Amino acid sequence: MQALKEKILAEGQVIGETVLKVDSFLNHQVDPKFTMEIGRELAGRFRNEGVTKVFTVEASGIAVAVAVGLHLDVPVVFAKKKKASTQDAGFYYSGVHSYTRQESVNIYVSSKYLNSNDVVLIIDDFLALGEALRGMVDIVKQAGARLAGVGIVIEKAFQKGGEALRLEGVRIESLAAIKKMSTGNIEFC
Amino acid sequence: MQALKEKILAEGQVIGETVLKVDSFLNHQVDPKFTMEIGRELAGRFRNEGVTKVFTVEASGIAVAVAVGLHLDVPVVFAKKKKASTQDAGFYYSGVHSYTRQESVNIYVSSKYLNSNDVVLIIDDFLALGEALRGMVDIVKQAGARLAGVGIVIEKAFQKGGEALRLEGVRIESLAAIKKMSTGNIEFC
Repeated sequence: MQALKEKILAEGQVIGETVLKVDSFLNHQVDPKFTMEIGRELAGRFRNEGVTKVFTVEASGIAVAVAVGLHLDVPVVFAKKKKASTQDAGFYYSGVHSYTRQESVNIYVSSKYLNSNDVVLIIDDFLALGEALRGMVDIVKQAGARLAGVGIVIEKAFQKGGEALRLEGVRIESLAAIKKMSTGNIEFC
Repeated sequence: MQALKEKILAEGQVIGETVLKVDSFLNHQVDPKFTMEIGRELAGRFRNEGVTKVFTVEASGIAVAVAVGLHLDVPVVFAKKKKASTQDAGFYYSGVHSYTRQESVNIYVSSKYLNSNDVVLIIDDFLALGEALRGMVDIVKQAGARLAGVGIVIEKAFQKGGEALRLEGVRIESLAAIKKMSTGNIEFC
């Protein structure tokens, strides 16, 4: 998606070798119109898959996921990083390790909102090592749902999470995939 | 907002005396089209206030905030509950106590995204005791920005958070305000 690549080049900030900061439009400050464009583009790539649910994890995937859900006209479910105090008995959960934060958390989804009749499109803002994605794929499996695929805004391809999941047969569509980057330099695949 | 009240009556689940579960359309599963309707309605109430930023806190306020931002055509900023590993020096933070979870967290906003030129509309899914809202109002003050007001999807009016803030001069618009509730019974103001 050309407009996204241009926005990353204009506003993205590379920190160290692995961190790309795009908090001016994607995951701290959000550009609503641009988010809708991103949603339209991702929805278009899965238009014919019979998707019944868009699935993401809080927090920074939510805006894009809602935009995709709007364009596909299906509900969005977001996994929570804490079990709600009001969570009833039925839920799926999976462990997710964050290398950035050096911590592991469980993510939770009520079994009311994903089941074996669902065709699920997973959406997230970033794909790096793929840890969050693996947790979500695991929950889709637990629910007995079919995974239509994964839509990602920015994939850091050099971190190999996407490569590993594609080898396992998961369809992943990234709107911008970064081959390598360093301070002041971002090279797309 | 009549459609919202009907949806709360149809799908809401009252647990104990203070918890209203609306996770089928608002804060776990999200109905994107309905979220856009909510956004349009809240945006309309602040249309003439010269709002430059919509402000919320992760996670469940994000979907509605983006819908409001889209209708007002301004950026959305969401406060984070953890300081980002990539957070630079300049940020505001404020402490928020959650009575539901019996814990206190800080919420963080980069000073790049709120400043003294901003006119801020705070958006959240729920208003109960007003703790999260007070944290956000505090951050708007720290930024030297003007607070246009607060837009809330569901206010549990019997918990008095809104009443206290209105007495302090904050304009709060709630799309559905609940006077009292118990199992199987919800009474709007």
